[in-house]
Amino acid sequence: MIIVVSPEATAEDVDRIVARIQESGRQAHLSVGTERSIIGVIGPDSPELQDMFETLPHVESVHRVTKPYRLVSREFQPHSSVVPVGKGVTVGGAELAVMAGPCSIESEDHIIQTALAVRDAGANVLRGGAFKPRSSPYTFRGLGEAGLEYLAAAGRLTGLPVITELMSVRDIDVVARTADVIQIGARNMQNFILLDEVGKAKKPVMLKRALSGQIEEWLLAAEYILAQGNPHVILCERGIRTFETAYRNTFDINAIPLVKELSHLPVVADPSHGTGKWKLVTPVAMAATAAGADGLMIEVHPSPDHALSDGAQSLTHERFAEMMRAVSAVAASVERTVPQPFVRA
Amino acid sequence: MIIVVSPEATAEDVDRIVARIQESGRQAHLSVGTERSIIGVIGPDSPELQDMFETLPHVESVHRVTKPYRLVSREFQPHSSVVPVGKGVTVGGAELAVMAGPCSIESEDHIIQTALAVRDAGANVLRGGAFKPRSSPYTFRGLGEAGLEYLAAAGRLTGLPVITELMSVRDIDVVARTADVIQIGARNMQNFILLDEVGKAKKPVMLKRALSGQIEEWLLAAEYILAQGNPHVILCERGIRTFETAYRNTFDINAIPLVKELSHLPVVADPSHGTGKWKLVTPVAMAATAAGADGLMIEVHPSPDHALSDGAQSLTHERFAEMMRAVSAVAASVERTVPQPFVRA
Amino acid sequence: MIIVVSPEATAEDVDRIVARIQESGRQAHLSVGTERSIIGVIGPDSPELQDMFETLPHVESVHRVTKPYRLVSREFQPHSSVVPVGKGVTVGGAELAVMAGPCSIESEDHIIQTALAVRDAGANVLRGGAFKPRSSPYTFRGLGEAGLEYLAAAGRLTGLPVITELMSVRDIDVVARTADVIQIGARNMQNFILLDEVGKAKKPVMLKRALSGQIEEWLLAAEYILAQGNPHVILCERGIRTFETAYRNTFDINAIPLVKELSHLPVVADPSHGTGKWKLVTPVAMAATAAGADGLMIEVHPSPDHALSDGAQSLTHERFAEMMRAVSAVAASVERTVPQPFVRA
Amino acid sequence: MIIVVSPEATAEDVDRIVARIQESGRQAHLSVGTERSIIGVIGPDSPELQDMFETLPHVESVHRVTKPYRLVSREFQPHSSVVPVGKGVTVGGAELAVMAGPCSIESEDHIIQTALAVRDAGANVLRGGAFKPRSSPYTFRGLGEAGLEYLAAAGRLTGLPVITELMSVRDIDVVARTADVIQIGARNMQNFILLDEVGKAKKPVMLKRALSGQIEEWLLAAEYILAQGNPHVILCERGIRTFETAYRNTFDINAIPLVKELSHLPVVADPSHGTGKWKLVTPVAMAATAAGADGLMIEVHPSPDHALSDGAQSLTHERFAEMMRAVSAVAASVERTVPQPFVRA
Repeated sequence: MIIVVSPEATAEDVDRIVARIQESGRQAHLSVGTERSIIGVIGPDSPELQDMFETLPHVESVHRVTKPYRLVSREFQPHSSVVPVGKGVTVGGAELAVMAGPCSIESEDHIIQTALAVRDAGANVLRGGAFKPRSSPYTFRGLGEAGLEYLAAAGRLTGLPVITELMSVRDIDVVARTADVIQIGARNMQNFILLDEVGKAKKPVMLKRALSGQIEEWLLAAEYILAQGNPHVILCERGIRTFETAYRNTFDINAIPLVKELSHLPVVADPSHGTGKWKLVTPVAMAATAAGADGLMIEVHPSPDHALSDGAQSLTHERFAEMMRAVSAVAASVERTVPQPFVRA
Repeated sequence: MIIVVSPEATAEDVDRIVARIQESGRQAHLSVGTERSIIGVIGPDSPELQDMFETLPHVESVHRVTKPYRLVSREFQPHSSVVPVGKGVTVGGAELAVMAGPCSIESEDHIIQTALAVRDAGANVLRGGAFKPRSSPYTFRGLGEAGLEYLAAAGRLTGLPVITELMSVRDIDVVARTADVIQIGARNMQNFILLDEVGKAKKPVMLKRALSGQIEEWLLAAEYILAQGNPHVILCERGIRTFETAYRNTFDINAIPLVKELSHLPVVADPSHGTGKWKLVTPVAMAATAAGADGLMIEVHPSPDHALSDGAQSLTHERFAEMMRAVSAVAASVERTVPQPFVRA
Repeated sequence: MIIVVSPEATAEDVDRIVARIQESGRQAHLSVGTERSIIGVIGPDSPELQDMFETLPHVESVHRVTKPYRLVSREFQPHSSVVPVGKGVTVGGAELAVMAGPCSIESEDHIIQTALAVRDAGANVLRGGAFKPRSSPYTFRGLGEAGLEYLAAAGRLTGLPVITELMSVRDIDVVARTADVIQIGARNMQNFILLDEVGKAKKPVMLKRALSGQIEEWLLAAEYILAQGNPHVILCERGIRTFETAYRNTFDINAIPLVKELSHLPVVADPSHGTGKWKLVTPVAMAATAAGADGLMIEVHPSPDHALSDGAQSLTHERFAEMMRAVSAVAASVERTVPQPFVRA
Repeated sequence: MIIVVSPEATAEDVDRIVARIQESGRQAHLSVGTERSIIGVIGPDSPELQDMFETLPHVESVHRVTKPYRLVSREFQPHSSVVPVGKGVTVGGAELAVMAGPCSIESEDHIIQTALAVRDAGANVLRGGAFKPRSSPYTFRGLGEAGLEYLAAAGRLTGLPVITELMSVRDIDVVARTADVIQIGARNMQNFILLDEVGKAKKPVMLKRALSGQIEEWLLAAEYILAQGNPHVILCERGIRTFETAYRNTFDINAIPLVKELSHLPVVADPSHGTGKWKLVTPVAMAATAAGADGLMIEVHPSPDHALSDGAQSLTHERFAEMMRAVSAVAASVERTVPQPFVRA
């Protein structure tokens, strides 16, 4: 951290700042300039320490120079992580992970029908929500444990690993038992106690970016999980909240290459939530692939206008198969592959 | 809900839309216009249903006409709610609730010292965090249960009711035992399972607005709590996230009068988080009072540059007393009062 | 500016950075630390120079330490500016400036009728648009020069100084001839050539903040005007664009006290645009007054549902008079006054 | 437009609303429902009319059902526009337009050197700024007319059509004389008088999206130009302002496919401004290509750390050539081509 001292400060004022730095357990390195003195603070930076120093008299500004996260950074681990998600599938390798399925699991039949369709089109992970965060208490909140059972059945039948959302520490055991990948939703990105708990779980975790989550906050949220001993974290960009009302969220394409530069963790794109409109899902999936995403998460429903949630952004089975063909061509242009369509015996 | 049919739709197309509406359990009221037909959907609106109808062929747009919340609305309860928070204090009456204290409880001594100071200056509720949401896993996360004990001791000593944050369903019993008001923080505004649980608690709840929480989402989050049977909800505006980097958050003054128009629930302003800079706290507290806030939540620390969190936005004991005098004058101009400074025997 | 050198840089790498700084005409002050070296750059900061240095090899980060504006800053002029706007009225003194009138001038009769009404209620400046920025080319864009004549007539009749918007350098002569204060609208905050030109004009200028204008950009825009020799600049906070859709704009109350801390220029609040809803105008006007605004700009129309623009946010004559009474009480509580209602002979 | 009447309205109240609609020159189509009546307003929609009707007593809400723009819409012209930009180059066809060059023209030598480099790497349009919008009055604002001459010389030498920014109606003749395409910058997207004037010009116009420009506003700004008789408009997505501070702007990838769905106008992507960091330019250029952009605008500088503006986001000549190769592969995957590298005789 660097502290810039106000021009009017006397030598005694500077001494008091230095003393306060030392009191905090850091060392101070004073550099007296012609207009302003600056003080280098030796030791780990933190937003809190920055806040604290900014309140000191005669401090003009405080600048952090080191990143507040460590385990998730490329400095800490230069090579890209490849996260195994079960049944031979990984996220972060040359082959994209394609996680597809309905927003909510609506019945055993429904999830099995979609699971077969997405597998046949080339998905290698099955998604489906059993515990659903809903803005209104009066809408369908998922089938809960029954939904998990149906998801597990669909996973067994198709051979696909499954991903499903965990909303609360209350449900961690039951979700971890079923899920091959535990999803932490956007609204829980900074549910720090939940992050601690999935950090102790023995399952990979996919961490979605919050609606107004800054890149640094997102990486710090991932740091929570790694700090508890779980290295298997996948990041998921799912659109941010902006002033634009023409779509549900604004997919942040910049985040894909930036996060891959800052961190070794794989990054998956969710163009379904990132746009909120099914017509935009395929072009944004193609864009994310071109920008270097390690996978896609896509909402698919046999009949979107009957979906109990997120119908407007869901692809039909046919459109999902078309999307896979379009993404496949783009993936090839960046030396990646998509999983091959399943050939039934 | 109103469905606008595309101009090119045939009578059969319209029939199919009407059939789909009926299938959803609603009635359809068709009005054939010269250019476009419109269909009124009779029955409760929801964003989900809107989404679903938008995916139907030949639907041009879908408009919600009713509000998605009910129990929190002024239509449901025209008179303003007054929430009792213990020891004779209420939120929503002519006297402002002034909740003051440190961001984090740092020791028994620390919380008692600040409790006495804020009580003497006129605060009528003591705040203090024992479980702290922190963006980094490497910073001080609060004293936990020990902090709650110190808070309780300070509350007993000063006679002030206490408010403290609940971060997880895991801690609900221990927090509810100590707190006179349970605080749900901005990052948990849409932690729906937590909302359900405090809806079952027998304590008042103060619900902070999320960093990117729209007014409608905030009221729906409050609806979760009321829907579980707990009518004692206080809303707290604490600033939103915008493009402006000159402050930590942008206090949304518009929200105060709008929420009071839409809802009967009391609204408290938190200018400490709403600005992130102690120099702005007093003017924004005065502004919120003038705009009709029912109370204030203020971070106070004996020595902000030693605070373990949020030092930059904390007032010293002296500055808090000055703020109370300034707010008192503004309150009088809008026919409200602030609690009187405590006179020691 | 401070340049933080990457840990891996060699002495030669550092030398090359120092050489590049010197090439730019600045001096470099090197401070070698244990982990990182930092280089102080002596000379004026600018975002451009920051950009340039950030592209140098082995530069980890670049931090600006001085503000990019000068003439508008409190450091440059510690006492608050008081801007004379004609006919005995000033902005920045103990008495608030209250600028009121219709969004657009619709006819001579219309502006005179409103001018009399707002003067009688206590306004001391008359506003009215003749050149109107409109998002659609198919809507009413103002009466142009005829509108200016009507405005001048209303100003003469009532004795009120008048403020009107200048949209283009093309119209500067005709607008400057009529206006006592030239308004630069939010969409032109960074129309730099227009700023240059009003900087050469002999009239006070009111500069509105852009929809996504950061405080620093806003002050730099004002700096353009002062740099051309015109010291009479009034800033106007009129709401910013955020994710919230419940209002047209989000009035940024934090900006009022912050700008008054950073700059000596007076600040006026426009709650009409800052909310877009007439029901919110009065509480937000009261809030801005409590927060230290030096004036108010209010849209008033005899029959808002007949207004050719901005009807939704306009007060009727009666509601404006009520607003004045409410603001008067708040103003007194912060030791300010509002102009007294005009007493007809 | 659809007006929803409040449940409590009497038949007389409804009559008054209908009368007011008729007074505005529209017809009203009343549909009496069980809970609420709704009134269809026959005639063109506008935000202004919506505002006006929202102020009427007993109006609960007003919904626009038609788009406010016409000439730019796909309904008006179903086939995609192809804009000729001179010297055999078009924007909107199978071959991408690649507009490259320095942010600012710094000297004749500088622009010629870069022009040759970008042409050799495959650019088919040369960009260069002579009039530069700068947030500070104290930074380099471009060479003005001299810069235009150097640009023209570089265009002649390389055979490339040139694009340059017009900042003010004051300079329209001199800019139009030199430019093959007139660029309207982000800060002027809603400089309506400038839009009118370039609508009368006989040159193609590239219209950048404003920092906080909504899609609808952007299309309405283009409508201004077409409404004056100039059909040759190219849209340019250059990133929007959001809460994220990790990049200068957030490139809005969703806008590419959505605008192409709503409008027949071609869309160019500017990943230089859209990210502000040269390391992100190539992946975002690839993403935009995959999402369907009709061209790219790229800042290139022989020595970015010596650039007088925008160094941090400029590619060197070598990196630009690499970018072209990467984009070429992606373009092929979506059945587009990039211009072939120039082969010197």
